[in-house]
This record gives sequence, C-alpha cells and structure tokens, in this order.
Amino acid sequence: MFIKNAWYVAAWGNEIGRHLTQRWITGEPLVMFRTEAGEVAVLEDRCAHRRASLSKGNLVGDAVQCGYHGITFDCSGKCTHIPGQDKIPPAMQVRRYPVIEKWKWIWVWMGDPDKADESLLPEFQYNDMPGWLATGGCLKVDANYQLLTDNLLDLTHETYVHGKTIGNSAIVETPMEYRVEGNEVHVQRIMRNTPPPPLFKKVRGFTGNIDRWQVIRFQMPANVSIDARGYPAGIDDLEQGMRWFSINSITPIDERSSLYFWTITRCFALDDDNLTQMINDQILKTFLEDVEVLEAQQQLIETDTRANPDISIRADSGAISARRIVQRLAEADAVQAQPVEASVN
Amino acid sequence: MFIKNAWYVAAWGNEIGRHLTQRWITGEPLVMFRTEAGEVAVLEDRCAHRRASLSKGNLVGDAVQCGYHGITFDCSGKCTHIPGQDKIPPAMQVRRYPVIEKWKWIWVWMGDPDKADESLLPEFQYNDMPGWLATGGCLKVDANYQLLTDNLLDLTHETYVHGKTIGNSAIVETPMEYRVEGNEVHVQRIMRNTPPPPLFKKVRGFTGNIDRWQVIRFQMPANVSIDARGYPAGIDDLEQGMRWFSINSITPIDERSSLYFWTITRCFALDDDNLTQMINDQILKTFLEDVEVLEAQQQLIETDTRANPDISIRADSGAISARRIVQRLAEADAVQAQPVEASVN
Amino acid sequence: MFIKNAWYVAAWGNEIGRHLTQRWITGEPLVMFRTEAGEVAVLEDRCAHRRASLSKGNLVGDAVQCGYHGITFDCSGKCTHIPGQDKIPPAMQVRRYPVIEKWKWIWVWMGDPDKADESLLPEFQYNDMPGWLATGGCLKVDANYQLLTDNLLDLTHETYVHGKTIGNSAIVETPMEYRVEGNEVHVQRIMRNTPPPPLFKKVRGFTGNIDRWQVIRFQMPANVSIDARGYPAGIDDLEQGMRWFSINSITPIDERSSLYFWTITRCFALDDDNLTQMINDQILKTFLEDVEVLEAQQQLIETDTRANPDISIRADSGAISARRIVQRLAEADAVQAQPVEASVN
Ligand code: FES
Ligand code: FES
Ligand code: FES
Repeated sequence: MFIKNAWYVAAWGNEIGRHLTQRWITGEPLVMFRTEAGEVAVLEDRCAHRRASLSKGNLVGDAVQCGYHGITFDCSGKCTHIPGQDKIPPAMQVRRYPVIEKWKWIWVWMGDPDKADESLLPEFQYNDMPGWLATGGCLKVDANYQLLTDNLLDLTHETYVHGKTIGNSAIVETPMEYRVEGNEVHVQRIMRNTPPPPLFKKVRGFTGNIDRWQVIRFQMPANVSIDARGYPAGIDDLEQGMRWFSINSITPIDERSSLYFWTITRCFALDDDNLTQMINDQILKTFLEDVEVLEAQQQLIETDTRANPDISIRADSGAISARRIVQRLAEADAVQAQPVEASVN
Repeated sequence: MFIKNAWYVAAWGNEIGRHLTQRWITGEPLVMFRTEAGEVAVLEDRCAHRRASLSKGNLVGDAVQCGYHGITFDCSGKCTHIPGQDKIPPAMQVRRYPVIEKWKWIWVWMGDPDKADESLLPEFQYNDMPGWLATGGCLKVDANYQLLTDNLLDLTHETYVHGKTIGNSAIVETPMEYRVEGNEVHVQRIMRNTPPPPLFKKVRGFTGNIDRWQVIRFQMPANVSIDARGYPAGIDDLEQGMRWFSINSITPIDERSSLYFWTITRCFALDDDNLTQMINDQILKTFLEDVEVLEAQQQLIETDTRANPDISIRADSGAISARRIVQRLAEADAVQAQPVEASVN
Repeated sequence: MFIKNAWYVAAWGNEIGRHLTQRWITGEPLVMFRTEAGEVAVLEDRCAHRRASLSKGNLVGDAVQCGYHGITFDCSGKCTHIPGQDKIPPAMQVRRYPVIEKWKWIWVWMGDPDKADESLLPEFQYNDMPGWLATGGCLKVDANYQLLTDNLLDLTHETYVHGKTIGNSAIVETPMEYRVEGNEVHVQRIMRNTPPPPLFKKVRGFTGNIDRWQVIRFQMPANVSIDARGYPAGIDDLEQGMRWFSINSITPIDERSSLYFWTITRCFALDDDNLTQMINDQILKTFLEDVEVLEAQQQLIETDTRANPDISIRADSGAISARRIVQRLAEADAVQAQPVEASVN
C-alpha cells in the first residue's frame, strides 16, 4: 500500500550526473540522469519497445538511447528516433516522472503528473540552510517502509536499542505529547534535569544533567524530522548546549524493502570536521542497530498466520496516527486510479 | 501437515542456558532460555506488541525484555511491564509452550497446552541410561520431515546409499517383518550368518560372518529408534559382539526443512573415547549421504506436476503405516483447532 | 508455454558418455547416458518409486540403478529389478524420451513418443559437414527462451549491443525482407558497399568496403540459423571473402531460464586453429553482451503490471511471426494433451 500522489526521495543530488542511474520506487523501475543544462530527468526504466532496461543504454545529449535496438527517448519520455523507420507510433513513449531537486535530495512524484505539487514536499529546509551543516547517508533496509516510520515516531525504542549512543531511561520515563494536524503528526518529549545519553556527552562534553527536547514531526508519505536539543539543566542557552535535526525520508522500493535517506544537520561547531565525521559514524551505527531489529520484525510479520496480531500501547499513538493518514491517502489514490465506470441509464 | 499435539525436540539440553535461543518448529518461531532455577522456558518468539523478535532482546532474571520497546514477559508469557504506562492490557501476552527436558533433549509441545501429556514422549531412555554412552548431533536438512522418517523406516537404502559404512547386500536380501501397534510401527530384519558391514568391522574387529539384528521402532510424530546388534554368527554373546541404538528425532522447521536430532548410544567399550569419536564421525558421514539424496528428492517432489506419482513396493510397508498414523493424528488436530460453529435451531 | 511435440537440444554429443547426466527441459528433469553400444538414452530423472534423482544413482550395464533403494530401470524406462521382491508392478516404470544424435548435438522429443518425427529436426547440417568446421558452446541464460529467439531474429540489435564485434550502423540502415513459409520464418538483409564490422576485419583482413549478407532462418521450436557472408564490395568471390553459419538452438529449462546452444561453422581456413579459437572467443563475448541485456529484460517483464505493454516496430516482423508459429503449435499440443471428454448422448 503506497501513496502514489506524493514525493519520494530517489537519490542524493550528488549521485545523479551525466550517466544513467537505476532505482526502484513503490515497485516501479526508474532511470535518472542530468541533462546538459544540469536538470534531473526521471523516466520509467522500461523501454516501450520490448522492455529492455534503458539504464543499460546510453545517454546521448539529453536523450536516452535504448541499448537493445537503439530507440531513443528525450527527457520528457517522447520517442525521437526509431532506427530503420521514419514513422513513430504515438504509443512509443515512456513515462516521465515529475522531479524536484531540493535540500540536497532528488524528489520524484510517483502519481498523476498533473497533480504534482511542490507544496507537498516536506519541510526539510534545515538540510540546506546557512548556519547549518548536514551529514548523512542512505541505507537499504529489507523491511516495509512503515516499520521505519513507526520506529522514528516512537523514540522509546532508543532506550532499549540505542543505549550506547542516543538512548537512556529518561526517554521511556517521560510522557509523550502528541497531536495530529491535517496530514501531519507531532510527537514531543521534554525531559528536564536528566542525564545526557552517551553521544551527547561526546559531542558537547556535558558534565552534569541536561534538559533534553525531542520534537518529532511526521509529514506524508514517510518523512520524519526530529528537532533534538540538549542544554545544561535549567539553562536555556544554545551556546552552552546543542541542537540538531535528525531528518529522515523513507522510500519504499517495494512492499518489503526500503531506502532510508537520513541526515543529521546541526547549528554549532560547523567547522569541526572531526565532529562531523564522529556524528556520522555514531548515527550510522545507531541506525544499523535499528536495521537489525526491523528486518527481523519484517520476517516475523510475513510468517505470521494469526488474525489480529498487534496489541498497542500508549507510546504507539503517534505511529498509529501516521499510519491512518497514509492509509487514507493511499486508498484515495487507489480509487482515483480506477477507470471510471460508464454510468448506465 | 503436522501433528500439533505432540512433543518435538527443540534442542540438545546443553544448547540452552542463560541466554535467548531462537528456533522454528512446525512453522512457529520459539525463544528458549533457562530460568535462574535451571528450568527451560519456551515462548513464542514474536513480541505481542509489534512482533519484534524477543530472542534479540534481553533475559532479565526469569523474564524476557523485548529489545525494541522494552515490554517484558515472564516465563509463562505474561506481560509484567510496559515502559511508560502502568496499565497492562490483558491481551498483551505471548504464547507459552509446555516443555520437558529428558534424555538429553529439550522437548516442546506444539499443540493445546491443556493436552500436554508426558506419557506421549517417545521411549528414548537409552540416550541417558547407566551403562550406556550416547554420541550424536543435529543436522539441518532441506527436506520435509516425513522424507526423513521414510528413510529410517526402510533400511534397504543402506545397501545403496551407505555401502562404505553400515550397508551391504545382506539387508536388501533379508525379508522384513513389520507390525503396527496403536500409534507405533515396528519393523525388523534378522540377518543370519552374513558378512559384517565396514563400520561394524572397524568398531568390533569382526573377522568372520555375523548375525545382525535391526529392530526399528517408529513413535509419533517423527521418532525412530533402531536397536542394532551384531554377534559372531551363531554366538549370541554381547561380550563378543556389539549392540547400539540409533536414536533419531525429526523436527519439522516448516513443510520443506527439518532438524535431524540423532544419537548412537552403545553399551560396550564405554571408556574408549577414540571409538566414540570414530562412531560419531562415521555416522555423521553416513547421514550426510542421506541428506544429499533427500534434498534432491524434495526438489523433485516440489517440481512434480503428475497426479499420483509414487509406486510402492513391499519394503515401504513400515513407512506407509507411519504416514497413515501421522495423517490421522494431524487431521484430528486440525479438526479440533477449528472454531466450533454455533448450532442453529 | 512450450511446444511439446518438438526436438530440443539436450547436450553436445561429447558431454554424454558412460555416466549419468541430469538436465531440465521444458520444466521436466531428464537423466541421460550412453548404452554400452554407444546409443544415447534419455529417461525421466525421477524414480517411479519415491522420486529420488536417478542421475545420482549408478549406471549398471545399460540400466540405471536408483541410488536410494536400488530399483533398476532399463534404457526404455522399464523396471527390471526391485530389491527384495520378485513381482514388479506394471506401473513401476519411468518415462522414456525419444532421442536423436545428429550434427554434434543430442536432440530430445518432449511430447508424445508416438509422434516423434525425425523430419521435424531443424536443418542444421552445416554443423557437421565435410568442408566445414564448427566451433561453439552452451550458455545458461536466466530469461525466457523466446526472448533469445526474438534477439536472433532482429539483428538490428547488433548495431547497439555488439559494436565491438559484429555490429555497425549498416545493419540498422538496411531494410529487412522477410517471409513466412509454413512453420519457418526467413529474414534477410543484403548490405551493399558497406564498411565491414570489426570482427570481419580481424577474420578476413578486409581493407575496403564489403557486400554483407545476413540470411536468417527460424525453424520451430526455437532454432535460428544465420547464413552470414562478406565479400569485397562488388566481387562475389568466396576465395576473397568469408561465409559462415551462426547456428543457434534455444532449449527452455523452464519459463524463465534457458540453455543457449550455439556454433559458428565456416568453410574457409579450416586448418587455422588460432582463427577457430579467436572466433569462438569473440562470439562468446558477443553472446555474453546479449545475456546481460536479456536477463535485465526478463526481470523487467516479470515485474511489469501494465496490461498491454509492448509497442512494435517494423524490424520486429520476423520475431512476431515466429512467436505466432510457436503459440499456434503450443496451443495445439495443449489441446491434444487434454483428456478426451466422454461424449454424453
Ligand atoms: S527494447 Fe528498447 S529499442 Fe528495443
Ligand atoms: S515490539 Fe516488543 S516491545 Fe515493542
Ligand atoms: S526412490 Fe528409487 S528406488 Fe526408491
């Protein structure tokens, strides 16, 4: 179940250049490249002729030449040349996907191109903002994308999964507040006078307790940002504390595997390259702990034959709300994708 | 097709300790551990909350703490703690499986716990009896468990598969006797004045012919013991001969893979460690010959599209009887597992 | 979808000897061997008893002894021995497949043995003819067999896939002629005064332009020969030019994988072993380029959910005709294989 009328991250901007890159999103194969002018173009990676993989062909100017029989498609998906014949059948075209490059990532619209709407991008401006520095990566995870958004919306798991880096018992002991606003879900925990988790100590050298904020925001289809702050307890001063955003966008490859695009973007010690590298290493290690849990969970869900298996707790409220939003929007997309029945009488 | 109301070997006793061990039986994931008192506990290895793998969590006292959000289950499967809330929903529990540790193995009851009945254990006392010494192991086999019991119930295959260790032409030339008693099948061959197979020569140094006994006993669901004896021909004297039991319990992982627990337990030369090692090596080699045959057979059965493929011979009688017993009991279990229909009128 | 009443290449003749060889054709497992008289015999590779793999057993004289319980089948598939019993049930037999060894290859008839008809062999005599020398091999390809015959029937792909060996732009620029004759398809291109492709230069040292012929012939079920000729432009003289046949037979393993048997057989410089080796190397490299394209195409077809996906062009005419022939014959086979309904009244 996927929302089709939505933007998904297909790649980091610097992955896409004057070459052909294949990637699968919501079960569809895409071929991506930059035009000579530097714009990103995204087409279906199945030749309209005999379904060869266009990404194994050649980029010729701003067009893709299929590597099998040489049929050529421009960056709008229109066929511009068929070897050995002049007439081009109108159906000879491949699907073009709307694309936006923004905040360091390439965003692809998987639904009706006429509905593509830049205002539906999640607000991830901190990935690329003066005074902020982002470090991050992309992980392939063999689990449904909603298991990843569940994970990010309930940070009590940090206590149990990530005790070596960002978790400690303060999180689970602090009640969560949450609210739904339109297609967004907000979850927050403010932990007063609490010991800093190991990574916070390393990053900012806290010696005593801190006030710690986690402000989580879900934006459809599968974007979760976390505004994380830590200050010496009682002293609300950024100079003595830290603040970063953990910015996460999950792209479904198909129903059982996902790409996990992530950054940590911070507004302090921007010139400290060692710190940047250390944060990247520690967060990557942290996410790999999640991957192990999530891939085992995926396997146990797939093999489960019970009728109504999950029992929820209070901490699930945010994740449940986000799933409701996704289900509602995905069902609306599916209805619109149905052919309209001719009305009789 | 599995008998659920039955005991299956889940592990050797010495595999289970103060740590969490995962194993799959009849398609269900189990987590196993020893309590502080040394008892073995077996729970479903799917957290009732979001189906994380409990075996990736922590053993805390006699309880399992899920490694994802920290929900804790005691060794009866009851939830004892939910982080961040006091109220525990009654449905928050995981299935507990009855378990018996006996004769060096851990036996798990996969059906209705109220029906768990120790008297249904197979009689495998020779695995752990004064005056006897057992050596053995466990093999994973990519074949249905009944292909393994078929194999053990028709030892004519020793002639063709195991000519280097325990087989020779005497077996296939000697008629088999068999009888069914309740849920047991007994098959036996007594070979008089026959050349010893290679392994018997190595073990006991026979120079001339022997009288050789094979007394096979099938006990449901998938247990086969073989009382094997060899004496110098005409001399029924253990001091000059050998006797051992080959004890085998097949545990279905699912419909197409199995765990094969096995021992050879003997009542002679108990102090001879080299002999113990040699027997273990030779029998393991022998069983790996079976594994190759059985895995190929499994593949050919799965790809077969013919309607009624198997043609039976006289030597199959024991295996066919055992399959009838399994089918009858498995169907009875399936009927009992159906929800009772409300009678109308 | 397979034509069953047809000959498929199962092996090179020199692969089959006094040992048992397994191979799968149209989803069926075969065991092959030579009798003491040197004839090739082909049986179903599933023992009629318990479906063990006969190819893991032993060849005893002209019979196959199953490696599991020793039941023996002669080279007609008739059971000749059951260990431990004298009576042989009439159903205890395995299917025999008609076989012809011709033109260096072993041909097996996968349909009704009574319909086996040597005149339905493709005319591949150039593989084994005085004055001609064949070099070749066999590749496993993870793609449906018809993707391979499509490939061979539209050589415009040489321009794009094989520019380093046998392709150049002349092919795609020259119109193709084609005609259907019964169950055969003929496609040809005659390219006048055209630059030779790289491999032709290497093989024959052409310095100027050539006249190049490609005469393609499809014979059911999946045989394609290409009569390829090149002469100095305007000079129709074999002494100064080259001619070879590319002979190809595709054997479906199942619906998604195939064996690709191929030769290049030439009528010039027969004693030049270096040339033979060079041609073999270059053609193998060329076919491995096809394999990469075809395996990606197979994956994209399997994952495609669109209703009517392929758009055809003029160059597809030959391949489309060949597919129509295969479909017609396969459907006729399927109808004949149905049990006849009793006519009522
Ligand atoms: S498949 Fe792309 S041109 Fe033929
Ligand atoms: S899945 Fe076990 S506590 Fe959440
Ligand atoms: S399976 Fe071949 S003889 Fe039994």
